[in-house]
Amino acid sequence: MSPAGPRRAAVAAALREAVRSGRLAPGTRLPPYRSLAVDLGVARNTVADAYAELVAEGWLTARQGSGTRVAERVAAKPQRVPRKAPGHRADAPVHNLRQGQPDARSFPRAAWAAAVRRAVTAAPHDAFAPANPQGRPELRRALAEYLARARGVSASPDQIVVCAGFAHGLRLIFGGGVLSGPLAVEPYSLPFHRGILADAGVRTIPLGLDARGAHTDPLASHPGISSRRGARAVLLTPAHQFPTGGPLHPTRRAAAVDWARGRGGVVLEDDYDGEFRYDREPVGAVQGLDPDHVVYIGSVSKSLSPAIRLGWMVLPPYLVDAMLAAKGLREAWTGVTDQLALAEFIESGQYDKHIRRMRQRYRARRNLLVATLAEHAPHIPVTGIAAGLHAVLRLPPGTEASTVKAAMWMGVALDGLAEFRHPDSPEPHRDGLVVGYAAPPEHRYRPALDALCRALPPPDG
Amino acid sequence: MSPAGPRRAAVAAALREAVRSGRLAPGTRLPPYRSLAVDLGVARNTVADAYAELVAEGWLTARQGSGTRVAERVAAKPQRVPRKAPGHRADAPVHNLRQGQPDARSFPRAAWAAAVRRAVTAAPHDAFAPANPQGRPELRRALAEYLARARGVSASPDQIVVCAGFAHGLRLIFGGGVLSGPLAVEPYSLPFHRGILADAGVRTIPLGLDARGAHTDPLASHPGISSRRGARAVLLTPAHQFPTGGPLHPTRRAAAVDWARGRGGVVLEDDYDGEFRYDREPVGAVQGLDPDHVVYIGSVSKSLSPAIRLGWMVLPPYLVDAMLAAKGLREAWTGVTDQLALAEFIESGQYDKHIRRMRQRYRARRNLLVATLAEHAPHIPVTGIAAGLHAVLRLPPGTEASTVKAAMWMGVALDGLAEFRHPDSPEPHRDGLVVGYAAPPEHRYRPALDALCRALPPPDG
Repeated sequence: MSPAGPRRAAVAAALREAVRSGRLAPGTRLPPYRSLAVDLGVARNTVADAYAELVAEGWLTARQGSGTRVAERVAAKPQRVPRKAPGHRADAPVHNLRQGQPDARSFPRAAWAAAVRRAVTAAPHDAFAPANPQGRPELRRALAEYLARARGVSASPDQIVVCAGFAHGLRLIFGGGVLSGPLAVEPYSLPFHRGILADAGVRTIPLGLDARGAHTDPLASHPGISSRRGARAVLLTPAHQFPTGGPLHPTRRAAAVDWARGRGGVVLEDDYDGEFRYDREPVGAVQGLDPDHVVYIGSVSKSLSPAIRLGWMVLPPYLVDAMLAAKGLREAWTGVTDQLALAEFIESGQYDKHIRRMRQRYRARRNLLVATLAEHAPHIPVTGIAAGLHAVLRLPPGTEASTVKAAMWMGVALDGLAEFRHPDSPEPHRDGLVVGYAAPPEHRYRPALDALCRALPPPDG
Repeated sequence: MSPAGPRRAAVAAALREAVRSGRLAPGTRLPPYRSLAVDLGVARNTVADAYAELVAEGWLTARQGSGTRVAERVAAKPQRVPRKAPGHRADAPVHNLRQGQPDARSFPRAAWAAAVRRAVTAAPHDAFAPANPQGRPELRRALAEYLARARGVSASPDQIVVCAGFAHGLRLIFGGGVLSGPLAVEPYSLPFHRGILADAGVRTIPLGLDARGAHTDPLASHPGISSRRGARAVLLTPAHQFPTGGPLHPTRRAAAVDWARGRGGVVLEDDYDGEFRYDREPVGAVQGLDPDHVVYIGSVSKSLSPAIRLGWMVLPPYLVDAMLAAKGLREAWTGVTDQLALAEFIESGQYDKHIRRMRQRYRARRNLLVATLAEHAPHIPVTGIAAGLHAVLRLPPGTEASTVKAAMWMGVALDGLAEFRHPDSPEPHRDGLVVGYAAPPEHRYRPALDALCRALPPPDG
């Protein structure tokens, strides 16, 4: 991929697609050669040649003093991209490699519809009366059995509260006064979750992070955490640190639970993709170590679809009433048909079957990502590949922002690690790309990886 | 119902049922004759005789100095009430005449499951990708057509935002910064909604209320509303004032809209049961008068089930982006299968069919309520009967609290009007009962009305 010719052709192709698809609107002024060349990590002439090629083809116009712009008429040409669904953003990227999105095409439509029918037919009448904020008993029973078997979670149905997903659970816990801040957190996490905590007035204290996961071992001696008014809770992603990708080491797991026990506090366990582990047996939930000091939260957002708004919290018994008070007053918002259908889906074995099928498919995608990078970009290390729906590509220092931009120009949507870094993180930032490999349709996955490889910085930095 | 014999028998029967069903647990101490007699509005001897009857039957025990208690062994007797579903409260009343609850037994299970199947089969793949916070386009199109036809709402699908019900909408509007307080409100409303507003820091200013509905005509001259920092929004239930029951008079509707237009503000229209009007054509939505100055909110909570968490907001175009920002960041919480199923349910005509069927059924219940009261309690006026799933029974001044307690002793769950009164209401409280007639199973409705009649104050006050 290093000779100038293919690079020019790649830049030209990406620009052409951007204009044709409408991502670059008519009249839009393109960046000067120099800055795009810097962003893409290519020679200035490569960009200049690509621009010239598109001007010649009529996609762009170049006028002295006004720079290079997208031609006014191109939008009127017949589009080769598929027509977009209403509500779809006009500037949606061609290749979706964002984290957090399972394969929408694999949603088990027929099996789910059958589960809805069976569950809705069999439900008692009170299922359609005003809902119990704890969630349907059928679902809580099914979850207690499933979570014990699949994730090592120890819970009775009475300890389970159904919610609409992890974010909903987090907001109920802190916004509803079940727990209060400050909260120890991992130094990388979803900004969306940090926003929910900030809205609830919770100060977050980032821990360190290394190959064994978050530094939970010094929790008890951490100055901002161990003080009298310090944190009594720590939020962790033990199965697959989000987004950097490692599992929490057993000694770190034990340390977190020991700290919570000694502190009279809790570990909040975000088990967002624990079912998807590829190279050995799943890493069980921390909750199993001490159910009285862990709040375990999971959802169907990765296993089925984030459009099915269904999650669950497994709470120490002493927190259940506070949670029901927080939820019952304002937020009993999980549709009963989805709850009943998931109970049926789990009990009929369809849920396990779907997860097995998706695990195979995602493993294959992960393998192709690793193989493609080994072939085309062997200088870029891939980490966090043992589990989940995303991997992290480590980048040379200082190249992350330009690589994300270059990817955007190649029609690839993804995020840099910086997006996820806690602003008060004690450690220097490590450049990297978070590459979600589940979202593209099967036939678009290889082209997405090819486009990604074109965006990566060359071997010599 | 006035001679002492039937009253004693009624009190004894209610007590017997309370003990037998477990509502009064073994060992529970009963109130002294005097206080129960005052609460029930009967003579002291009536209660004393009823207690004696149950002691003789072995349901109660009476010991000097320890008062009258529920006998310890009675719970071991075979229960005649149906076994309770898990999660059901042990002290649930026998007769549910609370407002706001449609008939759970009439949920159209088979038709809904069929709609889910058709909709889930036909949906595009992106339905199962992360959800657009505005809601599925299929549903917004179906709602735009339905609301225009059934409620006189004028809206394009772009103005509709799907939510999880009225309360969710209210919280998004004020908690998400789409609008800010203060807010003019009706002097009677759901305390739950006032709590949401209080949580969002919104000061509410109650209007007056008469037979023509809320006093919207003096909005422009109201001291707390017309000032520079006064309210720019008013929350109304124009089709069926909640809970007092009248429709908002046309001149008042026009006054509200005129005020909003002049003020650069909005009318928030809570159309919670607008489909259920019995004696003439539905009262159309205020929104149709001026779509640029009304936020219309509806849901399936009365028409289908409050366990299906699905509602909609029709917004003036200039508020849509602010709403999507508020919702998209934190609250895209409406399951896609319910959204798709409702779209299908509306478009296939099943939704109209279900509403027609339920309108007939509720009308019959309303008629039986009116007839029963005319026969057994002709001194109690019934109001708010032209629409909805509840009526208001006007009570002699000072009798509301004791009547609600008496009803509780008869196993009837319902609320007094005082529950709904704004604490700063400018007018004196009017005693009344809010009687929901939709919730009891068909075969339990007559017994519920009989129990209600026994709880009403006698003709002579």
